[in-house]
Amino acid sequence: MNKLQRTPERYTTAEYEERLVRIRARMEREGFDMLILSDPSNMSWVSGYGGWSFYVHQCVVVGPDGPPVWFGRGQDAQGAYRTVWMQRDRVIGYPDHYVQSTERHPMEYLCARLKDMGWDKGHIGVEMDNYWYSARAHERLTAGLPDATFKDATGFINWQRSVKSEKELDYMRSAARLVERMHRRIAEKVEVGIRKCDLVADIYDAGLRYDDWEGHGGDYPAIVPLLPSGPDAAAPHLTWDDLPMKPDEGTFFEIAGCYQRYHVPLSRTIYLGKPPGHILDAEQAVLEGMEAGLEAARPGNTCEDIAIGFFSALERHGIQKDNRAGYSIGLSYPPDWGERTMSIRRGDRTVLQPGMTFHFMTGLWMDSWGYETTESIAISEEGPPEVFCNIPRKMLIKD
Amino acid sequence: MNKLQRTPERYTTAEYEERLVRIRARMEREGFDMLILSDPSNMSWVSGYGGWSFYVHQCVVVGPDGPPVWFGRGQDAQGAYRTVWMQRDRVIGYPDHYVQSTERHPMEYLCARLKDMGWDKGHIGVEMDNYWYSARAHERLTAGLPDATFKDATGFINWQRSVKSEKELDYMRSAARLVERMHRRIAEKVEVGIRKCDLVADIYDAGLRYDDWEGHGGDYPAIVPLLPSGPDAAAPHLTWDDLPMKPDEGTFFEIAGCYQRYHVPLSRTIYLGKPPGHILDAEQAVLEGMEAGLEAARPGNTCEDIAIGFFSALERHGIQKDNRAGYSIGLSYPPDWGERTMSIRRGDRTVLQPGMTFHFMTGLWMDSWGYETTESIAISEEGPPEVFCNIPRKMLIKD
Repeated sequence: MNKLQRTPERYTTAEYEERLVRIRARMEREGFDMLILSDPSNMSWVSGYGGWSFYVHQCVVVGPDGPPVWFGRGQDAQGAYRTVWMQRDRVIGYPDHYVQSTERHPMEYLCARLKDMGWDKGHIGVEMDNYWYSARAHERLTAGLPDATFKDATGFINWQRSVKSEKELDYMRSAARLVERMHRRIAEKVEVGIRKCDLVADIYDAGLRYDDWEGHGGDYPAIVPLLPSGPDAAAPHLTWDDLPMKPDEGTFFEIAGCYQRYHVPLSRTIYLGKPPGHILDAEQAVLEGMEAGLEAARPGNTCEDIAIGFFSALERHGIQKDNRAGYSIGLSYPPDWGERTMSIRRGDRTVLQPGMTFHFMTGLWMDSWGYETTESIAISEEGPPEVFCNIPRKMLIKD
Repeated sequence: MNKLQRTPERYTTAEYEERLVRIRARMEREGFDMLILSDPSNMSWVSGYGGWSFYVHQCVVVGPDGPPVWFGRGQDAQGAYRTVWMQRDRVIGYPDHYVQSTERHPMEYLCARLKDMGWDKGHIGVEMDNYWYSARAHERLTAGLPDATFKDATGFINWQRSVKSEKELDYMRSAARLVERMHRRIAEKVEVGIRKCDLVADIYDAGLRYDDWEGHGGDYPAIVPLLPSGPDAAAPHLTWDDLPMKPDEGTFFEIAGCYQRYHVPLSRTIYLGKPPGHILDAEQAVLEGMEAGLEAARPGNTCEDIAIGFFSALERHGIQKDNRAGYSIGLSYPPDWGERTMSIRRGDRTVLQPGMTFHFMTGLWMDSWGYETTESIAISEEGPPEVFCNIPRKMLIKD
């Protein structure tokens, strides 16, 4: 364990070591000699690192033997010493003149270090479609390691993360308490005339503050609160402005609680006034679909089964939703609280296993309005799933 | 203007058009026939788009003629209709089964659309070293457009953004009021025993709420608050936990105000107790260096001149700082509030021009402690720069 570590550990060294054994077994089956992980969530799950430094190049290398190696900006090595489970000799910092330079690239420095270690050969897995692995990084890395063969490892670790341990589920249960508190605060505060930015201040307050009953405070979610109103609610990813809320509009609140970087997202819609019939009808369809989907969310079934349950109800009501109805969730860093592995949609035949966790994202974004009522769930040992949150599953109408 | 637009516009159509003329002139000089922009800050500055959707592939294409084209996930086209200055026929949404699929890639869909428009030839600029342009995106794009030649356009638009208009400076002045309020709130609330997460809730509150005197509320900064204490302050990018603050420790608060996506970062250090001599000495050196750097921050001088002023003072005091002392700032989206163009460091000989804006990031991260007192500045027409914030430039000691 690292002597500089002050904050309570997210996982024990035994947990990291056990993960490493599983990772290496799978690497062998899939023909990888080494992995270079750029996704901060994967870096964190494998090494413990968690600083907000993903705006410069960094990675964790799982080499042919021994603990992983953290690689990043020199000044962030100090953050690594304080958060990773490996010893100092497994932390490599690159000099600052490699940062945002047009002449030098951090991957060149990495290549030199990998050569020093004799890790410049064989089949190297890189996360080709990850935000934090740019086209340039790939170009420099492949040019710098001519004796290696590169293979795509996008999602390799993400898939390892899909079944949660009991400890991880407990972190998510704590995140659920936070997002419940956030929704209760919204329900209490929202009214015609309140400014969006002020409501967001309340949402952060409810998601962060230490609560004596909980025994802990919150962390920053990987996505900021999304709360578009009226016709803007047709757009799923608009954030907020500083204008007052208007009467006779629906607003969805798509937010997550975050504890130990584990996320539990939950969306609810609030209507300030009398909701029109088409929104009430849509709600009826969504709630029916959710019942059917939750019923199907059992071990042995597939992601597609949840989707079929949900979409069939929508279709009976004549509603078309042309996007997926959810995704795997867990440990995450910006820009996304999804795990980018399973999707709740037709064609995804992944078999559900106990401990898999999903945001059952049943939002509707139509041409001139939107509606979101969602649940986050964990697949149980048998029967229907654990629903993480206890917030009434319906639109809140404040007339 | 787009009829669906509800919120006040960040820029006028005339401003966008004028930018486009400047961009095209420079494209011609540098031999680009087309630009594919993946950086959300660049997308926003060129098109107006600003949803939190950068976790899926999206871009803005500056083609050979006409207004730019927005390309993104089908459901986010609704967000584009509401925020971009172009008409609907310049917005292309891709179907949802391209999202996080192992079989299809959004860039394949883009290639097909570019072919439809006859935009599949010539020299295409792509942002090779941007977070949002992955190795896989580049691979699919180049494979899908065999008649085009690809050239690196990393920083092309960022450089266009470096000199701010009076309106942009005004947005930054508003952001400065917000970060001042955040620091005043911290100074008021911080004490031994207060939990970090609770203090962060207060920081968000101060940075977001509508203020009658200001006439507006805040937006989310591109980086979350950084506030490590004691030995952890040696690490510049650790965030927070839910533990109480301890006596006899220094904590730096690196935060930014954000208005209309324009950022003004400002850091201050607070010591709970009697600061040890080495931290007081360091402060003396930093303040002297800042005076010298600010004195050098005038039009006609270079970024390096600011750095030399600052680092010379540090060296006189025997303090070594082996990282840069600042960077260009302005419009930004996560993960970084820097513009990734100019750096305040030796070797950066960019000539300073009126309207350029910087975070003069003079933080020290030593082996077992850290200290940050910084300023954000705008280069003036003549003489020393405009210092955006009015917060005492020294450590706050609460004994």
